Amino acid sequence: MLLVLKKEASQRQIDELLENIRQAGYSPDFLPGAQRTAIGIRGNQGYIDEAELQLNEAVKEVIHVTRPYKLVSREWHPGDTVVRLANGVAFGGREPPAMIAGPCSVETEAQVFETAEFLSRLGVRAMRGGAFKPRSSPYSFQGKGVEGLKLLRKAADRYKLAVVTELLHLEYFDEVTDHTDMVQVGARNMQNFEMLQRLGKIRKPVLLKRGISATIEEFLLAAEYILAGGNDQVVLCERGIRTFETATRNTLDLN
Amino acid sequence: MLLVLKKEASQRQIDELLENIRQAGYSPDFLPGAQRTAIGIRGNQGYIDEAELQLNEAVKEVIHVTRPYKLVSREWHPGDTVVRLANGVAFGGREPPAMIAGPCSVETEAQVFETAEFLSRLGVRAMRGGAFKPRSSPYSFQGKGVEGLKLLRKAADRYKLAVVTELLHLEYFDEVTDHTDMVQVGARNMQNFEMLQRLGKIRKPVLLKRGISATIEEFLLAAEYILAGGNDQVVLCERGIRTFETATRNTLDLN
Amino acid sequence: MLLVLKKEASQRQIDELLENIRQAGYSPDFLPGAQRTAIGIRGNQGYIDEAELQLNEAVKEVIHVTRPYKLVSREWHPGDTVVRLANGVAFGGREPPAMIAGPCSVETEAQVFETAEFLSRLGVRAMRGGAFKPRSSPYSFQGKGVEGLKLLRKAADRYKLAVVTELLHLEYFDEVTDHTDMVQVGARNMQNFEMLQRLGKIRKPVLLKRGISATIEEFLLAAEYILAGGNDQVVLCERGIRTFETATRNTLDLN
Amino acid sequence: MLLVLKKEASQRQIDELLENIRQAGYSPDFLPGAQRTAIGIRGNQGYIDEAELQLNEAVKEVIHVTRPYKLVSREWHPGDTVVRLANGVAFGGREPPAMIAGPCSVETEAQVFETAEFLSRLGVRAMRGGAFKPRSSPYSFQGKGVEGLKLLRKAADRYKLAVVTELLHLEYFDEVTDHTDMVQVGARNMQNFEMLQRLGKIRKPVLLKRGISATIEEFLLAAEYILAGGNDQVVLCERGIRTFETATRNTLDLN
Repeated sequence: MLLVLKKEASQRQIDELLENIRQAGYSPDFLPGAQRTAIGIRGNQGYIDEAELQLNEAVKEVIHVTRPYKLVSREWHPGDTVVRLANGVAFGGREPPAMIAGPCSVETEAQVFETAEFLSRLGVRAMRGGAFKPRSSPYSFQGKGVEGLKLLRKAADRYKLAVVTELLHLEYFDEVTDHTDMVQVGARNMQNFEMLQRLGKIRKPVLLKRGISATIEEFLLAAEYILAGGNDQVVLCERGIRTFETATRNTLDLN
Repeated sequence: MLLVLKKEASQRQIDELLENIRQAGYSPDFLPGAQRTAIGIRGNQGYIDEAELQLNEAVKEVIHVTRPYKLVSREWHPGDTVVRLANGVAFGGREPPAMIAGPCSVETEAQVFETAEFLSRLGVRAMRGGAFKPRSSPYSFQGKGVEGLKLLRKAADRYKLAVVTELLHLEYFDEVTDHTDMVQVGARNMQNFEMLQRLGKIRKPVLLKRGISATIEEFLLAAEYILAGGNDQVVLCERGIRTFETATRNTLDLN
Repeated sequence: MLLVLKKEASQRQIDELLENIRQAGYSPDFLPGAQRTAIGIRGNQGYIDEAELQLNEAVKEVIHVTRPYKLVSREWHPGDTVVRLANGVAFGGREPPAMIAGPCSVETEAQVFETAEFLSRLGVRAMRGGAFKPRSSPYSFQGKGVEGLKLLRKAADRYKLAVVTELLHLEYFDEVTDHTDMVQVGARNMQNFEMLQRLGKIRKPVLLKRGISATIEEFLLAAEYILAGGNDQVVLCERGIRTFETATRNTLDLN
Repeated sequence: MLLVLKKEASQRQIDELLENIRQAGYSPDFLPGAQRTAIGIRGNQGYIDEAELQLNEAVKEVIHVTRPYKLVSREWHPGDTVVRLANGVAFGGREPPAMIAGPCSVETEAQVFETAEFLSRLGVRAMRGGAFKPRSSPYSFQGKGVEGLKLLRKAADRYKLAVVTELLHLEYFDEVTDHTDMVQVGARNMQNFEMLQRLGKIRKPVLLKRGISATIEEFLLAAEYILAGGNDQVVLCERGIRTFETATRNTLDLN
């Protein structure tokens, strides 16, 4: 539920309103904005006296948010979100499109430094690379691990690139979050809710890849998990979905 | 690669062969069986002198296993696999079909005991129930946790039922594996390789659910992860796949 | 819209009601039945004074049929439909399951007679076979045409089998409907509305195959086209849908 | 099979070669081109003495075309195809992208003239509009028919637009092909092979829409049907495929 506040609402009125909502057992989100100021009420569908809220002097309008996601909706957050990495490269809003590039797997030091140098020359400012590799088969190469992370970091720093790498296992949560500027969540982990909740507690941007058969709603709810934990620096990555067409590996869902 | 051995191969010949394979850097699987005895060679596609193997006196035939999965294939394991839970109920082979039933979520003690009593009267010998619930939305009920596991165990013991419950998060690995007779891996975790590897190390049966958009090959490779760890007590659960049809929640892939 | 009539409604009351509906510009379907007698009103969503109908003495209840299909719904036709072919073999209701079998294509006289004799010995009473073949590629074999139809008919008659064959092109409408006991509509023609309308005008049973990516609703609407023309002898054929899974040619939608 | 000819091959050598192929029971396609001259051999996979062809003095190379489509492949036709409508607007090659716009259904004269005037002002040079409408439900509006075609033609002529309209039923083949500059084949008719064959015999461009669940291969084979009849003026229309995602009506397959 969203309470859009009147322009003339006083700070005292707003504070009282927030306090009343808390006393009713909810956690209100205070949402000031250029176009409007609002209070969002999330929580377990408990009873709330809407009539009373509507009569409150500070409230202009009560909006029911019927979609299951709240924080990621334009209703809750009408402005554009811009996610900025440590070296300044940014995604979203009116920023120019930014490219993230790099090898599937980190393999050797030479490979990573050559790639970084090449990207830097092209003006690309974010480098990706997999240090741990999720493999469908238990018999495939599984990646270089922490050593790979360190190579990525070293090469990126030398060329002032941001590092984007995947958090594959929670076991390596600290190592990955320490060495990267943006944590990538792979398609297979899009609904790994434990991982999403842990990422909600950190203050690093997250690149959330869409699950291979995730609907848009499920995709947004996965992002909601991260935002609900307090981290609103999430970039959604559309990477194609699985369809009957086998001429290409995935079908890009451009819509 | 599979080496089918001659019926007349001596133990000494077989031991020598196994030793040679180990020295070449592979881990051979010795596969004795009613119909044939074989040695399976898995590993990272390295070089192996096939001609030499073919000339070996104990070897009848060399079979290339072109599919990416090995241990779960009928080539590696031509006999039926029967998975038996602690109370004797069994799945596979010529066993009569067994049913696993129970509520989506464990909610109250009364609910669980009533269900167990009801199932027991019907002749059902395995009860399921979710103690932790994976939810698409962060705002939905998340389950009763360890307390729910204990309720399940208590009710099942009273009525001599086996317990089947989901391992949702690795964080609760010990609690879940301690209280259940069969560990369920949910569709969303079918490619959680860290979880599959951990389950390969235990000696409890695993009920592996097919991912919502997993191909049969990916499904078998997920099982392969568990078997590759040493646990061959895996039951595959076909639970329907995601298709364009929305008249039903999933499309059961009976084929 | 469905008007369920009172048990005690007189014939005169019913006739008056039917006449009123006709005068309002609709074509009422009179639907007598064992469990209830009703009047169905189909048509182009025009205005109809529902209040007046509800007050009519013969009317027990007014039911809105919100689904886009009417005649094929259980609401319109609560009883089971049994479709019986010329030789007595029947589909639906409490009839034992009947099998239709035969070759993909009619190729030679010997082939068709051998098949018919074989089926007859097994107790199968309906034979299928393609005389015209729809081919994705213009360079594949296109079938034997009318000559094939005659061979099918001859062999089936000799063994008292019913003939089921596909109407591939409207051009051969008369030849196909003359020689067969049940007209098959292939998956690729499921939404060939011109064909469906023509089949609505004949009095031969139709075997309607589900389109490769047709939803259940589209499937029922295709049947509705045939029933709307006056032919209610339609058997639906679930033949699998196209999904991401390529391990099997189609995914049978058993649900 | 493709025979790439030597640059120095004489006309007499080529004529002899063509004659030999014809005598072997095949219809050769002579394919002169800027980059190479070739002879294509299509037909029913019969036996052809490849060794002899390879020894022929005029033949530089024998290429096996393993894909089921031939005429639509770049191997057969390496140059770009440009399809030009009566008023000069063109599709393909290095032509600027052209837009076809207009209403779903032709409803009134005013509607069509207003649309034509509006498009003309925007610089759009091709107008579409449905005169016959394929409807999933037999109870929906079915279009204005031939009268609609005439309205489209009249309005388009007034504003020098090309007309693009759908051939829905073969019954109206002449009326549709007479009044339009480009014949649209709808997604549901993409595998209506009778229609494709008829369109292969005319000399009007065809806009072929991809079936809702057609693979790229099936799409190209449908075009092959038209080209095999002698009409090489085909424009492929990607209009989205049916997938599990319901947030949008179709998933555009941009790949």
